[in-house]
Amino acid sequence: MAEYSKVAPTPLLKDELDIVIPTIRNLDFLEMWRPFFEQYHLIIVQDGDPSKVIKVPEGFDYELYNRNDINRILGPKASCISFKDSACRCFGYMVSKKKYIFTIDDDCFVAKDPTGKQINALEQHIKNLLCPSTPFFFNTLYDPYREGADFVRGYPFSLREGVPTAVSHGLWLNIPDYDAPTQLVKPLERNTRLVDAVLTIPKGTLFPMCGMNLAFNRELIGPAMYFGLMGDGQPIGRYDDMWAGWCMKVICDHLGLGVKTGLPYIWHSKASNPFVNLKKEYKGIYWQEELIPFFQSATLPKDCTTVQACYIELSKQVKAKLGKVDDYFNKLSDAMVTWIEAWDELNPAGGNTVELNGAAKPSK
Amino acid sequence: MAEYSKVAPTPLLKDELDIVIPTIRNLDFLEMWRPFFEQYHLIIVQDGDPSKVIKVPEGFDYELYNRNDINRILGPKASCISFKDSACRCFGYMVSKKKYIFTIDDDCFVAKDPTGKQINALEQHIKNLLCPSTPFFFNTLYDPYREGADFVRGYPFSLREGVPTAVSHGLWLNIPDYDAPTQLVKPLERNTRLVDAVLTIPKGTLFPMCGMNLAFNRELIGPAMYFGLMGDGQPIGRYDDMWAGWCMKVICDHLGLGVKTGLPYIWHSKASNPFVNLKKEYKGIYWQEELIPFFQSATLPKDCTTVQACYIELSKQVKAKLGKVDDYFNKLSDAMVTWIEAWDELNPAGGNTVELNGAAKPSK
Repeated sequence: MAEYSKVAPTPLLKDELDIVIPTIRNLDFLEMWRPFFEQYHLIIVQDGDPSKVIKVPEGFDYELYNRNDINRILGPKASCISFKDSACRCFGYMVSKKKYIFTIDDDCFVAKDPTGKQINALEQHIKNLLCPSTPFFFNTLYDPYREGADFVRGYPFSLREGVPTAVSHGLWLNIPDYDAPTQLVKPLERNTRLVDAVLTIPKGTLFPMCGMNLAFNRELIGPAMYFGLMGDGQPIGRYDDMWAGWCMKVICDHLGLGVKTGLPYIWHSKASNPFVNLKKEYKGIYWQEELIPFFQSATLPKDCTTVQACYIELSKQVKAKLGKVDDYFNKLSDAMVTWIEAWDELNPAGGNTVELNGAAKPSK
Repeated sequence: MAEYSKVAPTPLLKDELDIVIPTIRNLDFLEMWRPFFEQYHLIIVQDGDPSKVIKVPEGFDYELYNRNDINRILGPKASCISFKDSACRCFGYMVSKKKYIFTIDDDCFVAKDPTGKQINALEQHIKNLLCPSTPFFFNTLYDPYREGADFVRGYPFSLREGVPTAVSHGLWLNIPDYDAPTQLVKPLERNTRLVDAVLTIPKGTLFPMCGMNLAFNRELIGPAMYFGLMGDGQPIGRYDDMWAGWCMKVICDHLGLGVKTGLPYIWHSKASNPFVNLKKEYKGIYWQEELIPFFQSATLPKDCTTVQACYIELSKQVKAKLGKVDDYFNKLSDAMVTWIEAWDELNPAGGNTVELNGAAKPSK
């Protein structure tokens, strides 16, 4: 893949990035990622039965948290972390002590570029996060900071410095991230088009953020990356990343932070069951018709200058405006507050490390 | 290039589309476009010395207008049409009787896709214009109507019908469309990256529209496609297409119309002189710092339901808010009104054809 001249050579950020993986199975998929992930620390969030032993291939440096760990570490606040849904991954964001997070699903493999070369997805995410974003004006040649590109004629010079990038949203070859109805209608559709572009989602524009292949600057936006209440005991699933994306985008727009989408691609190996998905999604499918206008019109007061303050304000608006859609949103609003309380407890302002006693397993 | 399943086979729109070419030289470049353009009608707008004879390769069906023709047809209203600047091309939009316009510069050649196949730019523009746009929510797999793509999970179903597409903005391989300062700093930069995507510019987002490779639905947006007062006797050049793009986008957003950018690419053969360009651009470079906030905050009243009404309203706002930036904008505001008057004169509401007596040259 093409490289960014302005950040070349790409820093590896080995000691500044955690890879967060939610899973219910042995992590054999890591073998394919070994050349790209082995130098990094992994945070594995084990979903489902905590007595099950998840095997991690040898040589990886990781810590693993199962439900018992989450309950022990968060106490009553553990209620904000979903169970039996990949939304549980956000617990990993909370316990990380690093500046950057990359999160990936365990059914995602290394994709190849058109020349057959393996794509180092993590390296591209790091490039995206280290380059500014341009949310205030669209550049027709896409990311202007990329090698071989720039701002085109008519792009205001005052906007060419850009803003810090908070989120890098990567895409998927093979199985596209479709909802259940589209899966049912197009069971054989595969994404074969690798679009060689990175672009900034403009300010004021919402998008469907997928958690499968996602990186972010935890210092800039971490507390907004709450994946909501999904799965066990909840009326909805598969909207965890969407919820996080909508909240995050409103807050990034308010704080002047950027969100990029496009490269890198991963290879998404298998479609989830559309019938199961339909059951998880169906309330979301009609609720989102009210959620989108809510987030499109949400504004935050000027005195909300931290992600936490923005998020608490947003939780109030959720309760006030979405509580009447369904009582679920009252619960979700409360969980948003709990999430921030838990985040702040584990991440005190002074930056003192809270000792978690997770099942840390250093690599040999 | 990939094809759109939902509009396949692509209608040629032979009798519904005019190709508008502004020029000061013989149109040898048409030879390369012959297989793609020969079935269409051309409207050639000859800039500069009207006594010069422009040679058009044999076999093309065209009408040609020089400055004398423009003055004769528009009378005093000809003042709104720029001279010695490719902004004169918009005269061609006005005299066309077709539903669609494709405009291209005479230094643009046929580009090749990665397989070496010649790209039929016009066919892709037609695909773009015949497919809906999605300005209200970003789709991460780009144009959802394209073959092999769709709306991704989390995209509201109520928005999947899209809105009519008014404008298709194509891109350029080889010489990128840079401003003079960037040309001077990066004289050797060439665009070699063909990004295989079409996307909708979101509502509320402005972009730098380039007139080099551009198509639009004249019935939907024609009167907003005024390229302003540039060139001879004016303090500015090379902002003609930008001006049109900003006005057009504000009006499309107001009327619920879509603007697409991306494919098709043309091969832009030669960079214009950056020193000459700097002279044309320098006022635009600082004026645009005031123009962009103006257009970003411009709103049109609900009772503006036609493009003409929107454009007249915008002309008033230009005078009221930009007149103080420079007296040029008072003149431009007046010219915007003249343009609409001339447009309506040549395009009466009943659709009666006004006989123009241009130098029509039917193909043999």
